[in-house]
Amino acid sequence: MPRYRLTLEYDGRPYVGWQRQNNGPSVQQALEEALTRLTGETVQLTAAGRTDAGVHATAQICHLEIDKDIEPGRLRDGMNAHLRDESVVVLAAHYAHEDFHARFSAVGRAYLYRILDRRARPVLDRGRVWWHPRPLDAGAMHEAAQLLLGTHDFSSFRAKECQAASPVKTLDRLEVSRIGEEVQMVVEARSFLHHQVRNFAGTLALVGLGTWTQDDLRQALEARDRRAGGPTAPPDGLYLTRVDYPSELLSESD
Amino acid sequence: MPRYRLTLEYDGRPYVGWQRQNNGPSVQQALEEALTRLTGETVQLTAAGRTDAGVHATAQICHLEIDKDIEPGRLRDGMNAHLRDESVVVLAAHYAHEDFHARFSAVGRAYLYRILDRRARPVLDRGRVWWHPRPLDAGAMHEAAQLLLGTHDFSSFRAKECQAASPVKTLDRLEVSRIGEEVQMVVEARSFLHHQVRNFAGTLALVGLGTWTQDDLRQALEARDRRAGGPTAPPDGLYLTRVDYPSELLSESD
Repeated sequence: MPRYRLTLEYDGRPYVGWQRQNNGPSVQQALEEALTRLTGETVQLTAAGRTDAGVHATAQICHLEIDKDIEPGRLRDGMNAHLRDESVVVLAAHYAHEDFHARFSAVGRAYLYRILDRRARPVLDRGRVWWHPRPLDAGAMHEAAQLLLGTHDFSSFRAKECQAASPVKTLDRLEVSRIGEEVQMVVEARSFLHHQVRNFAGTLALVGLGTWTQDDLRQALEARDRRAGGPTAPPDGLYLTRVDYPSELLSESD
Repeated sequence: MPRYRLTLEYDGRPYVGWQRQNNGPSVQQALEEALTRLTGETVQLTAAGRTDAGVHATAQICHLEIDKDIEPGRLRDGMNAHLRDESVVVLAAHYAHEDFHARFSAVGRAYLYRILDRRARPVLDRGRVWWHPRPLDAGAMHEAAQLLLGTHDFSSFRAKECQAASPVKTLDRLEVSRIGEEVQMVVEARSFLHHQVRNFAGTLALVGLGTWTQDDLRQALEARDRRAGGPTAPPDGLYLTRVDYPSELLSESD
């Protein structure tokens, strides 16, 4: 029974999120239905990160097994033919090692958070950036963000609904930089708490506005209490951009 | 009667183009109606470039006159309040010199043409790039493109409907470069023929595919006949990104 790894791009706007839910269409459902139409089989997908409603991906990873052995390039093209009316596309398909698990094998995840920092609302990037009309000091945000690096109890940036066993995570990278009117935040860790990146974005924006000092951020982190953290930034600006795996689990067909 | 210069961003998809037409909504109409709701006046806008249906702008320039003297920042915000349901936004408003004319005062125009060069169709950038599933050699496109620089009769790249007095134009810049999966073309000239940039893109893609040599491109240019040029690339990938004016015509309020 061949196992496959898929790399996916999607626009999160039309979806309730990655995971199947009763309240609307999900990315998972769109892909599983395309697979069923293609193979006649009932297939279940597992993703590296269960992104929320409105959150985008430029390189989400998922795995699946099917009875029929379809050459990966034909699986990609066949799925994409059935996804024409959807906002998700298969960028690449590969045979996966039998031990490969999109979620549990992942050793690193990278997210991009885009803030459009200008007075006029976004038009070309509507729904794909967080519109922040008040000027942000990206340098101050970057400096303060370095306090968050390393291993901490991130309870202050954790959503109530978070199902992680522990609030302790190790943050490997948090870079904030300005590119024209855009303030971009690149965040990397082995894994994240629910809403952690959006809570970082919402909180660092307070630093960028001058409302919070570095010390306020430090105190918020040390409080280990969600009420001490800043607001949750909208999903619009969030992109899952990379998932890392041990090379021995990436199939020779790469 | 104060004169204003506006800088505009728009997504061309919902519009029949810049100019008012009977077959659908135009960018000009959306802006003029917002101005009427704001000022109670009937206002006519003149743009630097009358972009076609589906063509985007990150910095279109237009001018207008109104009886009421509204501080430029308030004009921008007031118009944007009336443009909430539209795909156009006013990025900036300035008082304009009485001799400033968005179209006739322009001494330079810059366009970006974006080609998504990958097997999978675009999702995040749907409608905002030309999807080109077959691999392009951006280096070969750039090299060949340099033949087009300078003053030429560009009839081979001119749309039938073109209303320019002469097919002779001077091309100042045509840079083709690859940025990941995207092939970007930056084109600058004082002015352009109708469809000139899209015809460059469609023709250079033939070079990028290896279907055409540099010599084929030279011969197409020298033929001075639209039938000798390559196909017209879709509007999706085209962006008006800059318009230049003599500094003395840019008001002190800049």
